[in-house]
Amino acid sequence: MKSDDNYIFEMSMKVRDYEVDAEGIVNNAVYLHYLEHTRHEFCEQAGMTFREMHRLGLDPVVSHIDIKYMRPLGLGESMVSKLGMYRRGPVFVFRQDIYTPEGEPVVKATVDIVSFENRRLSRGDRLAVAFAKFLE
Amino acid sequence: MKSDDNYIFEMSMKVRDYEVDAEGIVNNAVYLHYLEHTRHEFCEQAGMTFREMHRLGLDPVVSHIDIKYMRPLGLGESMVSKLGMYRRGPVFVFRQDIYTPEGEPVVKATVDIVSFENRRLSRGDRLAVAFAKFLE
Amino acid sequence: MKSDDNYIFEMSMKVRDYEVDAEGIVNNAVYLHYLEHTRHEFCEQAGMTFREMHRLGLDPVVSHIDIKYMRPLGLGESMVSKLGMYRRGPVFVFRQDIYTPEGEPVVKATVDIVSFENRRLSRGDRLAVAFAKFLE
Amino acid sequence: MKSDDNYIFEMSMKVRDYEVDAEGIVNNAVYLHYLEHTRHEFCEQAGMTFREMHRLGLDPVVSHIDIKYMRPLGLGESMVSKLGMYRRGPVFVFRQDIYTPEGEPVVKATVDIVSFENRRLSRGDRLAVAFAKFLE
Repeated sequence: MKSDDNYIFEMSMKVRDYEVDAEGIVNNAVYLHYLEHTRHEFCEQAGMTFREMHRLGLDPVVSHIDIKYMRPLGLGESMVSKLGMYRRGPVFVFRQDIYTPEGEPVVKATVDIVSFENRRLSRGDRLAVAFAKFLE
Repeated sequence: MKSDDNYIFEMSMKVRDYEVDAEGIVNNAVYLHYLEHTRHEFCEQAGMTFREMHRLGLDPVVSHIDIKYMRPLGLGESMVSKLGMYRRGPVFVFRQDIYTPEGEPVVKATVDIVSFENRRLSRGDRLAVAFAKFLE
Repeated sequence: MKSDDNYIFEMSMKVRDYEVDAEGIVNNAVYLHYLEHTRHEFCEQAGMTFREMHRLGLDPVVSHIDIKYMRPLGLGESMVSKLGMYRRGPVFVFRQDIYTPEGEPVVKATVDIVSFENRRLSRGDRLAVAFAKFLE
Repeated sequence: MKSDDNYIFEMSMKVRDYEVDAEGIVNNAVYLHYLEHTRHEFCEQAGMTFREMHRLGLDPVVSHIDIKYMRPLGLGESMVSKLGMYRRGPVFVFRQDIYTPEGEPVVKATVDIVSFENRRLSRGDRLAVAFAKFLE
């Protein structure tokens, strides 16, 4: 795995008030939504939407998430969500980190994706072709 | 419309902590989830699941919701969700009220459902057959 | 109430994939999140955040929502969320409509807000001052 | 860490239709809600609610989650959510697994909780007292 500098995509988001729980901070599950939305925006910009992949019989599925919570976000705060990726056999690992606009880390996560082809777990070769130019 | 006593289904639920927002009360959108979950549990108990209806080419769709918020629910609170229904032409109106366990009203709502048959808006006759014994 | 042209605020949003349910369309509860987020962004741009109002002992609370669903949004779709407001005694009525980018109506809603001052229901005079320049 | 048999709490839940996404399966983020709800129900049954702990200046915070997705849940499915816990210095590790009613694993997770006392990160000694009888 290369250094954190090897991000290939980033986007800004802002906390929506309903994402904040009774403790006044963004609920831990909401970050998985942020990460998913970031992956989907990345794929869309890369020319591959999930529905298009699905139409082709290619279904990426999350198999494992490891997420460290460094600093909570609260009401009205903004964030920058960054993404890198690499392949480890049949697994596509998305390194996904979220920062404050000032660069302070909020969460650091790795999200493992495996690929189903025609409803069967695959070695990921077709997905690797689709992501070829992004793989580290 | 008959009196509020004409409920035909009720179920208990409990607030989950993540449903409470930064003001310490259940977020207004979450009540629509409670109402939907109640409708689906009612349908399932009545022998009609939404996936079964969908398989038969019958798709109920929410066309209108009117919801009054009487008293907020907070962390750890329980509720009783009650449901009645009647038909108004092509529209099936669910009267859905949520109470505290002590009987204090929390929300009072009407949810209008229209029925698509094979992807076209219908007069609701097939849905009326399915719900025949419950219609007021 | 004036015509729909009297919007005083609008913003664009895009459906996030996790907001779409098993029927392939945005779940009905999610639109309340869109409407709330729009109100909060409007307030923030108007110089009044909800946390600032809360700090001053002023708590706007949703008392009633009426929402008509005209056309569903699906995966990857964008929307424009528009807002107008007027006062009816102690109630501040937000007229909130969401459109497709092409101008087709998605939902049409009115959201009634009442104002608690120091935890007691108020006539809304302080909130009226805060919103003075926006009231129709 | 002891074997998976050392669960000290379990509860049943049922998928709510709005928790299922466009792929027809429970969205990955929703499982964190299930896990959180399970922890809170466990704490409540153990006589410690989060609001009571908060009142005493004791705030448990999630610092790390590792979750493996083994088998997706779909519309209408039920689950059994099980929990064990142990302490590793200042970290309280919740081992949380979800199964189908037939015992097939759905997700396997570890959730690390650290304890803030009066808003400062603590060594967890007060939380250890509260959980004494449950620590492996």
